[in-house]
Amino acid sequence: MTVYSVLHALSDPTRLTIVQTLRDNTEQACGTFPVTVAPSTLTHHFRVLREAGVIHQREEGNRRWTTLRYDDLETRFPGVVDAVLRAARP
Amino acid sequence: MTVYSVLHALSDPTRLTIVQTLRDNTEQACGTFPVTVAPSTLTHHFRVLREAGVIHQREEGNRRWTTLRYDDLETRFPGVVDAVLRAARP
Repeated sequence: MTVYSVLHALSDPTRLTIVQTLRDNTEQACGTFPVTVAPSTLTHHFRVLREAGVIHQREEGNRRWTTLRYDDLETRFPGVVDAVLRAARP
Repeated sequence: MTVYSVLHALSDPTRLTIVQTLRDNTEQACGTFPVTVAPSTLTHHFRVLREAGVIHQREEGNRRWTTLRYDDLETRFPGVVDAVLRAARP
């Protein structure tokens, strides 16, 4: 987890909407995010977020559940996620 | 100036070093940044930062001077730049 990969992961509207949704809720099932992109595009965005260490995903039954690694992010980069989410609000 | 282009501009070690240098000083001449990249690469990084609205550059004589648009960034995205710079410190 580097600050560069985290910032890159956050530098996209769809990915930031995913992070905002996860910040407001806890664990979230795929398909329940308020984004309008093709499934393959969404898969790509989840991979970028996962590889940067921003989210964690687990399979259960036939669903994939996603959580924000908020505590890890706060430990490594205090204040960054919330400052970015505030900045992205309309 | 969007939060996405600003985050993208900050998501690179060389560009973040440039921003850190400008945050610590005021106006800085090109060629005086503590980075070790080819001049053409540095020109690219300055362009990304400029187009994102992170820096301002002006020509004077045969030198180019660079400043951080800190007040503009703080007005639009309060706390983002300083949180990112803190996160990037070794």
